[in-house]
Amino acid sequence: MSKLLTPTEIEQELATLQSWTQAGNQITRTFTLPSFPAALAFASAVGHLAERADHHPDILIQYRKVTLTLSTHSAGGLTEKDFHLATEINAIA
Amino acid sequence: MSKLLTPTEIEQELATLQSWTQAGNQITRTFTLPSFPAALAFASAVGHLAERADHHPDILIQYRKVTLTLSTHSAGGLTEKDFHLATEINAIA
Repeated sequence: MSKLLTPTEIEQELATLQSWTQAGNQITRTFTLPSFPAALAFASAVGHLAERADHHPDILIQYRKVTLTLSTHSAGGLTEKDFHLATEINAIA
Repeated sequence: MSKLLTPTEIEQELATLQSWTQAGNQITRTFTLPSFPAALAFASAVGHLAERADHHPDILIQYRKVTLTLSTHSAGGLTEKDFHLATEINAIA
């Protein structure tokens, strides 16, 4: 079971996590891809990482934009799992 | 350029389109798949149909649920294109 991060810990994590922002109990980032097929392929790649981590962001595809939203629902907020997966996603963006 | 449907036409279309509902200028349906990988694969299949039709729904993947939202933004509301693609999507669900 992942431990909820404190507001200070969340701030520290966000400081090193490029382009993600906090929205309440979640972190979110929108990626703009060159095309709709590229957006789909990116969503699929994110899905691969999510399945490997057994941690699943909400994935919203709007034409060539992909918005990811991460939270640890079982813990009721943000945990290391969210920042770990967000870092992995940034690495493939 | 697709022609906006009248409220009566929209009602008629919805009457024969299983499980989609109207929400303002859009139609929407949520599909529940057996798993997250299945949800991703379904989103990808929807994306193929969307690309073929050059008409792109918003696709929201939340674990094993996929919510599709269709509207013809260029026309400012619902057109035949939306109902045509929704019918195609139902056929692969």
